[in-house]
Amino acid sequence: MSKIHFDTIALIGIGLIGSSLARVIKREGLAGHIVVSTRSESTLARAQQLGLGDSYTLDSAEAVKSADLVIVSVPVGSSGAIARQIAGSLKPGAIVTDVGSTKGSVIAQMQPELPANVHFIPGHPLAGTEYSGPDAGFAELFANRWCILTPLEGTEPAALSRLTKFWQACGSRLDTMDPVHHDRVLAIVSHLPHLIAYNIVGTASDLEEVTNSEVIKYSASGFRDFTRLAASDPTMWRDVCLHNKEAILEMLARFSEDLASLQRSVRWGDGDALFDLFTRTRAVRRGIIDAGQEVDAPDFGRQQASHPSK
Amino acid sequence: MSKIHFDTIALIGIGLIGSSLARVIKREGLAGHIVVSTRSESTLARAQQLGLGDSYTLDSAEAVKSADLVIVSVPVGSSGAIARQIAGSLKPGAIVTDVGSTKGSVIAQMQPELPANVHFIPGHPLAGTEYSGPDAGFAELFANRWCILTPLEGTEPAALSRLTKFWQACGSRLDTMDPVHHDRVLAIVSHLPHLIAYNIVGTASDLEEVTNSEVIKYSASGFRDFTRLAASDPTMWRDVCLHNKEAILEMLARFSEDLASLQRSVRWGDGDALFDLFTRTRAVRRGIIDAGQEVDAPDFGRQQASHPSK
Repeated sequence: MSKIHFDTIALIGIGLIGSSLARVIKREGLAGHIVVSTRSESTLARAQQLGLGDSYTLDSAEAVKSADLVIVSVPVGSSGAIARQIAGSLKPGAIVTDVGSTKGSVIAQMQPELPANVHFIPGHPLAGTEYSGPDAGFAELFANRWCILTPLEGTEPAALSRLTKFWQACGSRLDTMDPVHHDRVLAIVSHLPHLIAYNIVGTASDLEEVTNSEVIKYSASGFRDFTRLAASDPTMWRDVCLHNKEAILEMLARFSEDLASLQRSVRWGDGDALFDLFTRTRAVRRGIIDAGQEVDAPDFGRQQASHPSK
Repeated sequence: MSKIHFDTIALIGIGLIGSSLARVIKREGLAGHIVVSTRSESTLARAQQLGLGDSYTLDSAEAVKSADLVIVSVPVGSSGAIARQIAGSLKPGAIVTDVGSTKGSVIAQMQPELPANVHFIPGHPLAGTEYSGPDAGFAELFANRWCILTPLEGTEPAALSRLTKFWQACGSRLDTMDPVHHDRVLAIVSHLPHLIAYNIVGTASDLEEVTNSEVIKYSASGFRDFTRLAASDPTMWRDVCLHNKEAILEMLARFSEDLASLQRSVRWGDGDALFDLFTRTRAVRRGIIDAGQEVDAPDFGRQQASHPSK
């Protein structure tokens, strides 16, 4: 069997995720032809310089014409507009998927626009870094990371199976999930952490009595860990907040309740309550390392990264 | 000039910090003799197996008898007890310092106990990992990290200079600061981040509708970043919370106010406010990388750590 999974793959959006897909598709030989499309002229030119695709167009409708697989990798707030642009040009039988961090909203935006003769299978690879744009991608991004598909009622098993095998060939581990459950799970494992990180970095940089240069100088004592998530793409995260509002508000409320309780323990000097919480949370990291979702090295392996010869 | 800075150094406490000091002192030849002392028999035995010192004792008073430099590396809540134990045995002219994350409380606990004929210079190396105990230390821990000394009124400049040079020889960059300002700076750059990390990990593991195994599986989408700080030593962090209460409560209040405002932006769909915050915070990370306090690699360099051959 050929390694080629699809004759033509159209990548709509060529940022961190799109360009990582382009690289792994090319490295693994998963497509006969890759069409790259984005609405920004300069980004498209950069993608071409990097040799990410086989053909390039600013016109998403043009891009999807002969594609057997269309992967929409844009901020979730733009999903509906993309669906409207490509709907009339899709090849019958094509698979259309996306990589958005919210699934309920993407489905609500895209499903009504797409024709009945294509297979729309929403998806979400749980992978990324704090960098964005076509230069930021790399072929190993999906290796050992989970990709969650949220197939709709009536999805053809053969199409689901093809898309599953494609993501596996990109290195991903696959799960399927109900879109509502996806949005609640992601609200706690991804959206809340990003919001909290953005918030604490904002709080620190607003302090009058501690200067920004002090915050920066002494950041290795804890603060810098949060700055990574808080350096993520602002457009992407604005859209996530606007498009998974209910689940995010629920998780924020729970977080704030717990924080009020922790604050009370600090105020009243309840050392036992503090010690109990601090002990309980330690076990969670061990679980993540054991599950292969984190490096088993102190300090995220920063020591190796800064002294690669070690 | 010999590299030896002190004839005898007594390390009281041999956890992550104490054992890292032992290793760098030995590697750099900064002491003629290292005495290791800790109250736990099994920890002391382990330190001896690891060859961290030249002599070993469970008796801290015995340990300091001939020491020119005494470094107290214990949870800050134990500082007063250590000071009482060693006060009567200290060599006149010895320098006594500590490594605690809170300075006001350590000074209040130790200063009244110590005799007038020693130089008490409180200190705080801003370095650590999420691991603890004598096995967790390494000689490079202090390299390029800041160490803040908070000298008291009347500190002899020569003693301050000797301690400064010692820490520099360990790899640190040195600053001096008023203890009250130290405690406020650390509350924002270190104590608040740890509390927030502990809190979010607690919130996530308490959810009924999202299982712990889902939190672990999908943690690479953001959550796992927080689990590192939340895996830090519970005793150390309980003591920090109990001993820097006022500054921590102030920072928690500011954080919560900002979070309420962010939550309001999510609820009312204020995309501009979200975008503004998310853009502002991005610059802070760039500042930290430029200041040499963070690795300039995506994802903390985890990719290199998990694929060291790359």
